[in-house]
Amino acid sequence: MNLPFTPALQGQLRAWLNEDIGRGDLTAAALAGRPGRAHWLAKADGVFCGGVLVEPLFRLLDPAVRVRPLVADGETVGMGQRLLELQGPAAALVAGERTALNLAMRLSGIATATAALVKMLEGTGVALADTRKTTPGLRVLEKYAVRCGGGVNHRFGLDDAAMLKENHLAWAGGVAGGLEAAIAAVRANGPWPARVIVEAETGAEAEAAVRAGADGVLLDEFTPAQLVELVPRLRALAQGRGLVLEASGVQPGQIQAYAASGIDLISTSAPITRSPWLDLSMRFDRDS
Amino acid sequence: MNLPFTPALQGQLRAWLNEDIGRGDLTAAALAGRPGRAHWLAKADGVFCGGVLVEPLFRLLDPAVRVRPLVADGETVGMGQRLLELQGPAAALVAGERTALNLAMRLSGIATATAALVKMLEGTGVALADTRKTTPGLRVLEKYAVRCGGGVNHRFGLDDAAMLKENHLAWAGGVAGGLEAAIAAVRANGPWPARVIVEAETGAEAEAAVRAGADGVLLDEFTPAQLVELVPRLRALAQGRGLVLEASGVQPGQIQAYAASGIDLISTSAPITRSPWLDLSMRFDRDS
Amino acid sequence: MNLPFTPALQGQLRAWLNEDIGRGDLTAAALAGRPGRAHWLAKADGVFCGGVLVEPLFRLLDPAVRVRPLVADGETVGMGQRLLELQGPAAALVAGERTALNLAMRLSGIATATAALVKMLEGTGVALADTRKTTPGLRVLEKYAVRCGGGVNHRFGLDDAAMLKENHLAWAGGVAGGLEAAIAAVRANGPWPARVIVEAETGAEAEAAVRAGADGVLLDEFTPAQLVELVPRLRALAQGRGLVLEASGVQPGQIQAYAASGIDLISTSAPITRSPWLDLSMRFDRDS
Amino acid sequence: MNLPFTPALQGQLRAWLNEDIGRGDLTAAALAGRPGRAHWLAKADGVFCGGVLVEPLFRLLDPAVRVRPLVADGETVGMGQRLLELQGPAAALVAGERTALNLAMRLSGIATATAALVKMLEGTGVALADTRKTTPGLRVLEKYAVRCGGGVNHRFGLDDAAMLKENHLAWAGGVAGGLEAAIAAVRANGPWPARVIVEAETGAEAEAAVRAGADGVLLDEFTPAQLVELVPRLRALAQGRGLVLEASGVQPGQIQAYAASGIDLISTSAPITRSPWLDLSMRFDRDS
Amino acid sequence: MNLPFTPALQGQLRAWLNEDIGRGDLTAAALAGRPGRAHWLAKADGVFCGGVLVEPLFRLLDPAVRVRPLVADGETVGMGQRLLELQGPAAALVAGERTALNLAMRLSGIATATAALVKMLEGTGVALADTRKTTPGLRVLEKYAVRCGGGVNHRFGLDDAAMLKENHLAWAGGVAGGLEAAIAAVRANGPWPARVIVEAETGAEAEAAVRAGADGVLLDEFTPAQLVELVPRLRALAQGRGLVLEASGVQPGQIQAYAASGIDLISTSAPITRSPWLDLSMRFDRDS
Amino acid sequence: MNLPFTPALQGQLRAWLNEDIGRGDLTAAALAGRPGRAHWLAKADGVFCGGVLVEPLFRLLDPAVRVRPLVADGETVGMGQRLLELQGPAAALVAGERTALNLAMRLSGIATATAALVKMLEGTGVALADTRKTTPGLRVLEKYAVRCGGGVNHRFGLDDAAMLKENHLAWAGGVAGGLEAAIAAVRANGPWPARVIVEAETGAEAEAAVRAGADGVLLDEFTPAQLVELVPRLRALAQGRGLVLEASGVQPGQIQAYAASGIDLISTSAPITRSPWLDLSMRFDRDS
Repeated sequence: MNLPFTPALQGQLRAWLNEDIGRGDLTAAALAGRPGRAHWLAKADGVFCGGVLVEPLFRLLDPAVRVRPLVADGETVGMGQRLLELQGPAAALVAGERTALNLAMRLSGIATATAALVKMLEGTGVALADTRKTTPGLRVLEKYAVRCGGGVNHRFGLDDAAMLKENHLAWAGGVAGGLEAAIAAVRANGPWPARVIVEAETGAEAEAAVRAGADGVLLDEFTPAQLVELVPRLRALAQGRGLVLEASGVQPGQIQAYAASGIDLISTSAPITRSPWLDLSMRFDRDS
Repeated sequence: MNLPFTPALQGQLRAWLNEDIGRGDLTAAALAGRPGRAHWLAKADGVFCGGVLVEPLFRLLDPAVRVRPLVADGETVGMGQRLLELQGPAAALVAGERTALNLAMRLSGIATATAALVKMLEGTGVALADTRKTTPGLRVLEKYAVRCGGGVNHRFGLDDAAMLKENHLAWAGGVAGGLEAAIAAVRANGPWPARVIVEAETGAEAEAAVRAGADGVLLDEFTPAQLVELVPRLRALAQGRGLVLEASGVQPGQIQAYAASGIDLISTSAPITRSPWLDLSMRFDRDS
Repeated sequence: MNLPFTPALQGQLRAWLNEDIGRGDLTAAALAGRPGRAHWLAKADGVFCGGVLVEPLFRLLDPAVRVRPLVADGETVGMGQRLLELQGPAAALVAGERTALNLAMRLSGIATATAALVKMLEGTGVALADTRKTTPGLRVLEKYAVRCGGGVNHRFGLDDAAMLKENHLAWAGGVAGGLEAAIAAVRANGPWPARVIVEAETGAEAEAAVRAGADGVLLDEFTPAQLVELVPRLRALAQGRGLVLEASGVQPGQIQAYAASGIDLISTSAPITRSPWLDLSMRFDRDS
Repeated sequence: MNLPFTPALQGQLRAWLNEDIGRGDLTAAALAGRPGRAHWLAKADGVFCGGVLVEPLFRLLDPAVRVRPLVADGETVGMGQRLLELQGPAAALVAGERTALNLAMRLSGIATATAALVKMLEGTGVALADTRKTTPGLRVLEKYAVRCGGGVNHRFGLDDAAMLKENHLAWAGGVAGGLEAAIAAVRANGPWPARVIVEAETGAEAEAAVRAGADGVLLDEFTPAQLVELVPRLRALAQGRGLVLEASGVQPGQIQAYAASGIDLISTSAPITRSPWLDLSMRFDRDS
Repeated sequence: MNLPFTPALQGQLRAWLNEDIGRGDLTAAALAGRPGRAHWLAKADGVFCGGVLVEPLFRLLDPAVRVRPLVADGETVGMGQRLLELQGPAAALVAGERTALNLAMRLSGIATATAALVKMLEGTGVALADTRKTTPGLRVLEKYAVRCGGGVNHRFGLDDAAMLKENHLAWAGGVAGGLEAAIAAVRANGPWPARVIVEAETGAEAEAAVRAGADGVLLDEFTPAQLVELVPRLRALAQGRGLVLEASGVQPGQIQAYAASGIDLISTSAPITRSPWLDLSMRFDRDS
Repeated sequence: MNLPFTPALQGQLRAWLNEDIGRGDLTAAALAGRPGRAHWLAKADGVFCGGVLVEPLFRLLDPAVRVRPLVADGETVGMGQRLLELQGPAAALVAGERTALNLAMRLSGIATATAALVKMLEGTGVALADTRKTTPGLRVLEKYAVRCGGGVNHRFGLDDAAMLKENHLAWAGGVAGGLEAAIAAVRANGPWPARVIVEAETGAEAEAAVRAGADGVLLDEFTPAQLVELVPRLRALAQGRGLVLEASGVQPGQIQAYAASGIDLISTSAPITRSPWLDLSMRFDRDS
């Protein structure tokens, strides 16, 4: 998987280090000048994620730190497996340890949880997508973790695709006329490549959305049986243009039933909002 | 509970809004100028947290937004309970919705998980403390959530207390002489009120730490039985000065056994690293 | 037209004021404490744009400034027309004058130039789109000016839609296989709503792009005659899915010929890269 | 010409990259890891400017990028001329392309337009100066472009020289007494080396300004004939102290007439507010 | 005196509060919700400075804080004098106290020390100027304090006036030719209103500077006797243009001797680099 | 002494350079491209401090600058002593000179003043501590200077230790019950390692503080005689727990009398609020 390393991300790494280090690591005085070596271990089975951030993060503390990766982001790892090796000034290794591990444990937890759900969809052709329910400040990274677990990303923000929900339509004044007017206003003010998705809670709403020219419909809390009946009707209305149908509100136990209904995507926040961190640790080599 | 609302936090709220809104909410065009009303609901039982951030966050988008809290941070809420009410320009309510909910769902999940563990310690006089395993960028808020759940905060960073771990001692050259030298170096370079805590994995290490003048000892992965025997020995060595003894590596099922061992604190990252978000939603009032 | 007023934009306004004011307006000492009134005038005919920024900008200098708009963004104005009225502390009016006018003159120049081109397309159903050739730092605003002039926005950055150009394909190793692989890599790493557009310089390239599943094709430097022949072929290959065909490299004199070729959009950087500023001025009322 | 490369400018380059790249270049996935080579070409005749920024800008994306300049800023270039060569990771070359070109095209457009006006003044001893009508965020660079085109910079902001305009005097209460009081207030509050310039619209105002001790007078919208008569009178009043006389409101066709009037400078915003961008392009070498 | 309140200064106040408050005032919990009243007292005689910052600073913590000034910046105050009154949430008063006092004590110390030196120059027509020896981050404010004490500001930075020192000339290759070339290079690259000052350590150097067209000469470590002889010679060379002559390296005891030598300014860093803070305190009203 | 070089400090160095350099050093044009060599000299006797910042600061201007330290921070230096040597592009050496010297002169002044006071305490076992009276923006560095002079740091901000003062208790409602409630509120909301210190102005207040469980008592404006009597009483009340007793309001002449009273620390702001800068200069090597 690819994580574009933007200048903005560089700035965030710096802010996260500052959050932990504040006015300076008090223990640095006990280490000043000494070199150190360390490595990371998985303390549980899972999918590793976040390794690409480790060297850039430590090098903000000291450009002399070097990291040797042993496992790539997205690879499955077993408990006890060695993940990467670091060397550099001991004070920098100690100062960056917690921030680096916190990031990687969080991301690896998401990748691991995503992979478990993706496995259930194997062979169905249906993709597992995330949502905008992400930890404030971490969206780009948490969505990268979803990709590392085999999932697909939904939009990254309010500005790369439009989703019209019940409240937009209510406020825009009545479901029917309002929907077309709302889509028109959005298209006139947004970039043309931005897709417009409409959230629907009934079959009638979904049909109205397709008729109004939506690029995608988010079918929220439909049963698999309802979808089996609705999906072909929506495809027919779309007359071959690239309509994306997405189910949300799906419980993990029902994933396979939903996958069989003809939809394109199942979107769920669970790998991000309900996954524990994957336990990782950094061990310092005594002889260093 | 008290959350000091610092200028730094104000800056973070702005950054989190920018993360979601980017170059602008594409759906704003469908709402421009309309007023709106909305409320928040709990969609599960738990402890609410994050309500104090809602008005400041929305007012960064539009100073006309007003929030009426119905539940205070730290209060237990039931599924379906109304938590707060908002009114203001519809475009601002829609633009801030996801960021505000993401924060509150994350914090409420932590408060809820903390409260469950704190309940197990009721009547024992032993406190439940957090760690520095927190989501990058959210430490002040996640630690506030722990307090809202009845827990106690451990240090906030590398700069408000010193913790000397195995690696510091290894690098400082041998456990015995190294420990005293390390403590001396830390005290000479840090502010005098900063406590110095030493992590110990054996009884001998713990005793050496007390003799070397540590203000606290983190007893990592001891059994309750070992602690019952060790704790009085350490208290005796401390000769009445305020030594804080803290157990870590405790499984939830064993909390009560540990609490009986005479320690002061049990520290655990679980409420932060292993808790699901508490499900909350924002409902828009149609007639608004 | 709608301009979402994001926290990020607020930050930019502050930076632009700092650029002009630096360590402080030296003339403020001559004005300290006096109230002032002023108004803006158009000094040429055109389409006004940037008025929505005036009050927020001046209020960063002094919250007591009030602005009364007389013309909305996107309206046609004539030489000598009064555009808005301001009142507040004279020192703030003087300090913000240049920055506010510079913004509005630049944006009004773009809106005016866009409107002239859009007029040529009237009745054709073909839209005029901008590009990513925008002044560094001003993209959101310059694209807003294009909308105010009746144009349509193309993507806002490298992250809301993908455009694969010759060089991507060259580097990805050969036009045919490379194109499908490149599209697959982009789709796997990007959000699913992001459209993938392919730039083509020959009919064969355009057909390959449609076959490979591109959502849009940018037809660069084709003649109108070539497009008349190519467009139907591409539509047929697309089999009804929503293919967007866009022509670039179009000279102003040829706009109508291109518009008749069946394409959806003509994209051009001219209103942004080749337009003079619209002359506006701020007049201070003597009696204030 | 010299462009001091300040830390502030470094920060702006980063912000401009973030504006285009946002959450990450979607096409990076198609290029990950590949090396690339490219060069820049002039697509029109003009004066090149902005080359000094190219390497610093790309190195913010990847420190491995190297740029070899073939033309210096301020040199005249012809259509088709090769301007510089780049090599480095293809993903970085693609991600920085648009921002780098937008900067250089804008700056080269200004340098080109400036050079054309400067040419008209050749041999007259009168300099062509810019104004504070600059694109928000780009002032330091746009003024550098004016220098590269042979022009002279006027003040950079409200804090490096004072200019008292009609409105200052109106508000400060009457032209005569007000002018001296205003100059005194400005001198008492500003650094002593800051020059104080007064804008005058009549001969009487100009004479009052010189008598009040102004270091410079901006003669706005005088005719050449009026200046021929007025300038010697002002020089006489100044009694040899270094008075700078500047004409503004000059149409391009009249530049030579004004130059003959004995003034020191003609100031005009035209090269910045009325110049098209110079067309440049970046070509990727296929074999790289 | 006038202190332009720029957006940049607002940002600095925020950063200074963050420096003291960090992750939050620990004592806020003891005060939450209570209102408070307080006032400031002078604990020594001196010149007050910094009062204009007090309300803006506290209002960053809580917009409900109100400040009533009793003394203006630049006024002489006596020990025990009441300076201003504050009211607002107690937690905000406590949180901002130290930062506000630190600023005002520092600035008042500078104003007091400046006033003492200025007094020695009374009636001489010679001004006392500061230098660029200022505390990093505080230059605009420290120079404002110098003005409040009756002094005059020298340039604010490397960009509002040029000072050529020995090293510039040495590096530019020989004093004679080098000086003219250096001045020419500076004038060609800087804004025309920027004055060019040359530092001279001998009479010959000073004369060379005047001949080369310098706008000012900094006469460093000359004796009063040397100046009495040199100054008229330099004035004659300047032939009436506005040459500013400035003496530096002056000991306080010699100020009057220097003042009699015909120079315009004495510049000294002493009020900024050698003054103690003026002792001020904030008293909380018990009944509040 | 150890100064942890945090990313936050790196950001401050950049801001301080920007403060002096602004839109660019005007004299850079006279130096462009030339290499230079320089060294620093002490112009007075004292304790040097700030040397560790010199290379990082200059390298923000040009990564080619190299600094060779000849004296470590905290070492005593004599007038005329060479402190460090620099080489690199002349334009960078000139641009960073003032900011680097301003920092080091300020810090060396503090270290020198601290060392003088510390000397008076030699052999007493009593430490000299600083306060929060520090220059806004410089706290971490000024406290480092205190350590370099042999002093001890007090808390770094409102968030690493709590100090309850008269006003907290007044607002919390009555000295007795209020004190315990205030301490309890602070402990419940702060991290457990944060010490709680109480300021006392009478013996009764000091005793109440110890009884209420304070970790330290700040004894403000007691006489040495009062302390001789009070200190043992407080130690007895503390029953061996680690109570830290600190005297403030001590005049320099009385330091030794206070030191004999049994207290642990004397805290004073004098080295920071009353010390002149240590005079240092940067000399440019002519032949470079």
